[in-house]
Amino acid sequence: MITAHDVEAAAGRLAGVIVRTPLLQNDELDRIAGGRVWLKPEMLQSIGSFKIRGAYNLCSGGVVAWSSGNHAQGVALAGRLLGIPATIVMPADAPAAKRSNTLRLGGDVVTYDRFREDREAIARAIAGDRGAAIVPSFEHPHIIAGQGTVGLEIAEQSLVLNDPPDRVLIPCGGGGLASGSVLALADRLPGVEVLTVEPEHYDDTARSLQSGERVRLSSPPASICDALLTDAPGRMTLGILRDHGVRGLAVTEAEVRRAVRFAFSRLKLVVEPGGAVALAAVLAGKAGTGGKTTAVVLSGGNVDPDRFASIQAELT
Amino acid sequence: MITAHDVEAAAGRLAGVIVRTPLLQNDELDRIAGGRVWLKPEMLQSIGSFKIRGAYNLCSGGVVAWSSGNHAQGVALAGRLLGIPATIVMPADAPAAKRSNTLRLGGDVVTYDRFREDREAIARAIAGDRGAAIVPSFEHPHIIAGQGTVGLEIAEQSLVLNDPPDRVLIPCGGGGLASGSVLALADRLPGVEVLTVEPEHYDDTARSLQSGERVRLSSPPASICDALLTDAPGRMTLGILRDHGVRGLAVTEAEVRRAVRFAFSRLKLVVEPGGAVALAAVLAGKAGTGGKTTAVVLSGGNVDPDRFASIQAELT
Repeated sequence: MITAHDVEAAAGRLAGVIVRTPLLQNDELDRIAGGRVWLKPEMLQSIGSFKIRGAYNLCSGGVVAWSSGNHAQGVALAGRLLGIPATIVMPADAPAAKRSNTLRLGGDVVTYDRFREDREAIARAIAGDRGAAIVPSFEHPHIIAGQGTVGLEIAEQSLVLNDPPDRVLIPCGGGGLASGSVLALADRLPGVEVLTVEPEHYDDTARSLQSGERVRLSSPPASICDALLTDAPGRMTLGILRDHGVRGLAVTEAEVRRAVRFAFSRLKLVVEPGGAVALAAVLAGKAGTGGKTTAVVLSGGNVDPDRFASIQAELT
Repeated sequence: MITAHDVEAAAGRLAGVIVRTPLLQNDELDRIAGGRVWLKPEMLQSIGSFKIRGAYNLCSGGVVAWSSGNHAQGVALAGRLLGIPATIVMPADAPAAKRSNTLRLGGDVVTYDRFREDREAIARAIAGDRGAAIVPSFEHPHIIAGQGTVGLEIAEQSLVLNDPPDRVLIPCGGGGLASGSVLALADRLPGVEVLTVEPEHYDDTARSLQSGERVRLSSPPASICDALLTDAPGRMTLGILRDHGVRGLAVTEAEVRRAVRFAFSRLKLVVEPGGAVALAAVLAGKAGTGGKTTAVVLSGGNVDPDRFASIQAELT
């Protein structure tokens, strides 16, 4: 419920942004009215009316998202670049690096219990309270188009290098990156084959693509690939993947760990487990790379030092 | 439907905002794969993953509103202040000054035929296409709270002047300004009486407050008060007004014209017809001002010169 407190909060946001119009008085008007009349002349606002008060108060309400970590940082940085406040609902057990980076980017982090609470309901309540807009992590045309710029760059850059890929392997959670990328890739590189890669037990996209139906997983076991733990693809993202004949691969935890180690020791790149699944498919010989050119997306590197160290320790 | 074109548009928005990560190659990886492998290392983005691409693309999608004019300018200015694009759906016959001011503030104006087209449907289609957020003109908690800062200022300023109003008269269209203001006024000035003022034939709020039901007008005649031509109050705004015992007044076109002339000749203020209805109620003796202190909101001054001239010409 909206109260006088909300109006005071709005006044705080508007301070320094709009004119505080004066109270005016006029003797003739007082005489006609037979009493004192205070006039509040809102036409003196720069736009000639009071309407900037509400519009600014709503538009400056910012954005709200829910995310285990990488989307959280994306939304926090987008908010900072655009000068709008960003609130992110994160699980209490999200990787510490992802949480601290989100805070460092100026995001307002609200934590919840992943096993007991509904992050979407929490985000929607915050959106209502603050007049903030919800930024979904994959199921939105502009999210899909934005993530798809990865695929567009792969097409453009590989054409400049005169060695375009026959296949492109893309890590897949909800499918925003994969569906956006396949749109651009199919446009620029006709005949290119795109494959999604998921952790085993979290292969909802691969199963959905195979069965033709949107598969929802029930109670999959824990996984180190925290960035990819969706239980079902989006309707929009799955539709795009299906329309472009995308197939899905899955890799084991051991294969993922090997890829994280390979990236560290050979490529000198820090890759988080979820970001290494496509590389894992190549290293495991699951990607049909022989005699072909393959492009592999390494989608992120936000991994806590202790987890990274324990994966590297397996080398010995 | 989302296409490769949307991805290219996203790439345009992202140019200069994010890193264009390179395509990397590694001999050992090529050897293991038995072919060429291009790596797209998205952990090299400043946030350590690709997620800024979608988040920025969505958040920079801006806002969209529909308005006959004053809210249009409010949204355009809020967008400019916040650095986000603003699209406003305006009737083709909106006052020229309101339209040109909206364009001057950087708003993207889309016009529609008021008698044949549905402005809300047009705005929702644009919001879908551009990933923009809709900014309603009154029925939203943050719009109400923002407009209510007018009431908050009246309370604060009149207390400093040691002459707080017994009554406050507020021009009323959808009720955002009135409902927000009464929240702050009732909190700061217990016992204050708040009255909405509407043009005759557009007294949907007055009738709704009197009957206790939300009244919707059918085919009211034309009015010079273009800023106040709503056919029903909002559910949220009406609820607030009712809960605070607000009553509604109505004024005739002749009374409004007289108030516009009075503001010009005596107050040296340019008031548009819709912004002058509360002053009109005082001048017409409808506001019970005798022996009391009354605060009057003059809500806007955006009137076309020819209309203003024709109203002033009636003096002679």
